[in-house]
Amino acid sequence: MSRVGSCITVYASRHGKLLSFLAFMKRIYLDYAASTPVDEEVLKAMLPYFSETYGNPSSVHAFGQDAQSAVDTARAKTAAALGCLSQEIIFTGSATEANNLALIGVAEEALKKRKNIHIISSRVEHESVLEPLSYLEKERGASVTYLPVTSGGFVRPEDVQNALREDTALVSIMYANNEVGTIQPIAEIANVIRAHNKKFRVFFHTDAAQAASYLPLAVAQLGVDLMTLSGHKMYGPKGVGALYIKKGTPVAPLVHGGGQEYGKRSGTENVPAVVGFAAALERAVAHREEAAGQAEALRNYFIAQITARIPDTRLNGSRENRLPNNANILFPGANAAELIVALDMEGIAVSAGSACQSKALAESHVLSAIGLSKKDAKSSLRFSFGNYTTKEDLDAVLDILVKLEKKFRVK
Amino acid sequence: MSRVGSCITVYASRHGKLLSFLAFMKRIYLDYAASTPVDEEVLKAMLPYFSETYGNPSSVHAFGQDAQSAVDTARAKTAAALGCLSQEIIFTGSATEANNLALIGVAEEALKKRKNIHIISSRVEHESVLEPLSYLEKERGASVTYLPVTSGGFVRPEDVQNALREDTALVSIMYANNEVGTIQPIAEIANVIRAHNKKFRVFFHTDAAQAASYLPLAVAQLGVDLMTLSGHKMYGPKGVGALYIKKGTPVAPLVHGGGQEYGKRSGTENVPAVVGFAAALERAVAHREEAAGQAEALRNYFIAQITARIPDTRLNGSRENRLPNNANILFPGANAAELIVALDMEGIAVSAGSACQSKALAESHVLSAIGLSKKDAKSSLRFSFGNYTTKEDLDAVLDILVKLEKKFRVK
Repeated sequence: MSRVGSCITVYASRHGKLLSFLAFMKRIYLDYAASTPVDEEVLKAMLPYFSETYGNPSSVHAFGQDAQSAVDTARAKTAAALGCLSQEIIFTGSATEANNLALIGVAEEALKKRKNIHIISSRVEHESVLEPLSYLEKERGASVTYLPVTSGGFVRPEDVQNALREDTALVSIMYANNEVGTIQPIAEIANVIRAHNKKFRVFFHTDAAQAASYLPLAVAQLGVDLMTLSGHKMYGPKGVGALYIKKGTPVAPLVHGGGQEYGKRSGTENVPAVVGFAAALERAVAHREEAAGQAEALRNYFIAQITARIPDTRLNGSRENRLPNNANILFPGANAAELIVALDMEGIAVSAGSACQSKALAESHVLSAIGLSKKDAKSSLRFSFGNYTTKEDLDAVLDILVKLEKKFRVK
Repeated sequence: MSRVGSCITVYASRHGKLLSFLAFMKRIYLDYAASTPVDEEVLKAMLPYFSETYGNPSSVHAFGQDAQSAVDTARAKTAAALGCLSQEIIFTGSATEANNLALIGVAEEALKKRKNIHIISSRVEHESVLEPLSYLEKERGASVTYLPVTSGGFVRPEDVQNALREDTALVSIMYANNEVGTIQPIAEIANVIRAHNKKFRVFFHTDAAQAASYLPLAVAQLGVDLMTLSGHKMYGPKGVGALYIKKGTPVAPLVHGGGQEYGKRSGTENVPAVVGFAAALERAVAHREEAAGQAEALRNYFIAQITARIPDTRLNGSRENRLPNNANILFPGANAAELIVALDMEGIAVSAGSACQSKALAESHVLSAIGLSKKDAKSSLRFSFGNYTTKEDLDAVLDILVKLEKKFRVK
């Protein structure tokens, strides 16, 4: 059991009455940025591929070809959503794996041709970008520039321009931030990179895991060479991600074997998961404006209410060019970790930063990068809204927050 | 669409009447070694984790902890089936990934300490072992010895002993072969390795993907340091594998990020898939003897019938120490590829070798290793039986084989 899990257990046993109450109360989930439930229609699309159409897509016979056909269709749908070719889509086991494949894959190919490579990224990337970059620095001798961001959370295209070097092989800047929702100027950065291209081609990767439900995904308009998507961040299943790899972008595989996924990711295809991924992406694209409008209205209401009702609270990160479903709020003087546990006891799920780092006790590197003090970073909560969030949910959460926040304010 | 897929389409359009007939006839699946349907109970165990318990296991709140608890339980069940500690189980996205993690992970750790490493494997391994070994040879300077096998398909423990060197870092020998079902003397090989250990510790990995439904999996009795399992080969879901890593075995991760799976495989856990994996493994262990007895009876009947009814056919590989559900049959003079397509048109699914290589046109490296000529290797079919195979299925297949085999015999 996790460290934090044990904390909650201890807390729970001290509050036995609350616990038995928990089972009966309505739970409210405001952590859609960490994971989303699989959409009912998506699950329905997946179901036949567990026990009915169960062949191995690599098999020659009809059982195998039925499975292969499902994978082909899922790939074509995904490509259509991105405006690219089917063979430019590689399905992976997670967005983390897709990020690793993009970064390590491009770096390894560049390292075959030259000894030194340089990579540009930012200080607000997800761990699944920062950690492979750290691996490339430590184990493969890569040099990495981590660009700062503005107080709003934005990477400046001119900073990318200034950081580009003769030996730059790759730029990786996320599309939308998982903690504060900042939408980066991807197309502008792409233009800067295109204008630079000198001796070696510079490839541009973006992690779009948080973007899929709300932002346009046409890769040609974005101008990227590689783009990561995640199933479970867009009402699709866990255990599946995708990497768009523009034709002609050399990427070495991380996993070797039967040569599936155009030799870039061997292993029997996860048929139900890729079917679910494509169905979720198709739905996301079809309902994008509606979902964005709904999320934005809820978010604006929430921000207005919270800043009005709880003194000194404020929004972290820019309000403009922000994911419509993200509100990252500073509660000055409050202990966010305690507040999360207290909210959890009331059946309300929020987080302090990315799920992947929520078990660590360090303050958020994203909030530090946008200029928050250690203390303020540890007094901030991320509320992320989704398809099933209602105004009534938010009103209930606001009432409880008003009540709890005083208790956990450390002056 | 795949090359072979197009072949079938061409074949199908030439036999239009057969195709329309296909939809109505009973299909018979004899390719359980390629993939198995998800067991009904296993799917039932998975279902709540798509849209109900959908939290990210890394999240602190109850939604996350419910998911974490499901992963913890799945890990504990898997460990119990193997007789090891929970923290010795790493869930991956496939058995291919688990094999890669074992081989590349151990090799990379050894390469941190010394410049040259030697690895011992065999000529009958699966592509997901041979390909990462080839990568380690070409890209990381490893030296690999591929041991020959007997005509029965067995690696000789004394060959392992003779191959061990001062710089050997790793031995990887599969538990049971995917093409001819040979069960390797894993415990004996482990003893040889243990007796050798000199300057550097030699780690022993086995790919047990094909073994889980029929063979004992207690890692202490097998004497292995690393063992690969596959979900979809044992009536569990695709998209999930596991690697047993004995405590104290240094393994570098392939995928870096949030630090899930004890830092060995980052990425949000595929909760429904690991729940399904553990449920499938638990079922496999509980029903092992029954399943083995049933499969063996069917297989023996099939072999007896086929060798009696079709002149000159014979079993490839040893009959002793063979997976109870595997029959690899040589049809001298027949073209296996054509026979597979013709059987497929009759609704019968069999294969020529591993699914992962079935789209390649080369003859099986396993059949070559046990001494078959190119021609005989291309005249062999793998029949693999499973939980839903009946004697009636086999009788139907035998009748059709008798009829078809003459047609496709090239003298």
